[in-house]
Amino acid sequence: MIPKNHPRYKSLMVRESLAAAARSGLVSLEGLAAHGRGEAFDYLIGERTTASAAEAERLASRLILSAVRPVFSVNGNCAALAAEEIAVFQKRTGVAVEVNLFHRTEERMQQVADHLAAHGVEVLMGECERLVPLAHDRGLCLPEGIGSADLILVALEDGDRCEALRKMGRVVIAIDLNPLSRTARLATLPIIDELTRALPAITEACGTEMAGDLHTLAASIDNQKFLADALREMRERLA
Amino acid sequence: MIPKNHPRYKSLMVRESLAAAARSGLVSLEGLAAHGRGEAFDYLIGERTTASAAEAERLASRLILSAVRPVFSVNGNCAALAAEEIAVFQKRTGVAVEVNLFHRTEERMQQVADHLAAHGVEVLMGECERLVPLAHDRGLCLPEGIGSADLILVALEDGDRCEALRKMGRVVIAIDLNPLSRTARLATLPIIDELTRALPAITEACGTEMAGDLHTLAASIDNQKFLADALREMRERLA
Repeated sequence: MIPKNHPRYKSLMVRESLAAAARSGLVSLEGLAAHGRGEAFDYLIGERTTASAAEAERLASRLILSAVRPVFSVNGNCAALAAEEIAVFQKRTGVAVEVNLFHRTEERMQQVADHLAAHGVEVLMGECERLVPLAHDRGLCLPEGIGSADLILVALEDGDRCEALRKMGRVVIAIDLNPLSRTARLATLPIIDELTRALPAITEACGTEMAGDLHTLAASIDNQKFLADALREMRERLA
Repeated sequence: MIPKNHPRYKSLMVRESLAAAARSGLVSLEGLAAHGRGEAFDYLIGERTTASAAEAERLASRLILSAVRPVFSVNGNCAALAAEEIAVFQKRTGVAVEVNLFHRTEERMQQVADHLAAHGVEVLMGECERLVPLAHDRGLCLPEGIGSADLILVALEDGDRCEALRKMGRVVIAIDLNPLSRTARLATLPIIDELTRALPAITEACGTEMAGDLHTLAASIDNQKFLADALREMRERLA
């Protein structure tokens, strides 16, 4: 039991809920450790959406509205932290949702899909093929999902897949708290914010932003600016 | 399987070994998340012992040599990461080792003690009493251990116990990668370094440093300096 007067009560409670998800197998044990890494970076941006991240979230909504086949690639941590937010986001944008796991087993693939479905998410299922050139099983995806998407939203993601997707010419939006990560550095648009704050912000902006030409819009984005903004916020916090 | 050419191979392998320790119950699931938090801060100091941390490690050895009843308070993460280093450190310094857990059950207390013993650590065991004024079970300790120690070494520790121990007039050395944590801010001497680098450095310095009067030495330590040094390193890394 964590005493309620503990100064890090909220952060410890989220951690406990992810630990419970790990007990059930939804979240991998390595995913739990990765969550802790994210906690530290969130702490450094003040556990709030910065003005720069809010701007990135509005841009993300424009990209998503402009895409023909946008796909949200969801892993175990994502599903455990934000299944409800993903359902609302999908209802608003019609984005396809595909499960992609670092620690992949068929059982966990089904478990994550079931957890999402139980929260109202429509999950793309089918026969996976290795359409992303990676030695790792994260290279497996659905031909009608990530395989043919023009835009892929990734969150809490490892860097090499982001790199491979970019090399394939895809537009990648990455929600990632670490501005030094390869995912954030290589994404078309990095959103340096916590997932359950970022998703509702993107969903809301979809109500006011306008669609355009996806690749023209993508080419106009200065991802370095968003990284530099986040690094500056963190330096100030460490001052 | 993590591919060997993965750029974060080493960090991911340590994470996998802690995940294995979590499967066996040695490390708590929340401890795994806390490890990830530490990973982020280690990344920000460049995953190396800084000159400032090396100075703190030499000072730590002087404090330990000067103490009459030094006790190392070990938790699950500590034991899983550094049982061998703890054994070598204990042989050199004669420090008493006591198990103290955030997620305490009698079974886990025994499991952590057994793991340490299997690596050659002599573990203090006995009847615990609530001698540290905390609502939490971490207030439980041994009268002949932490209960009567003049110096307590803590690592990968939550802040409120450090605060309580300091209020009791004890000298506290904290090995903690987060210079903003309460543990680091409230310790007599914070060592902003990773545990398996810090312990061998302290052990080695015990061969050359001289003992003195514990409380005079403790009073001469400027803990703010070590925190400021670490924060500066991290800001540089984020520049």
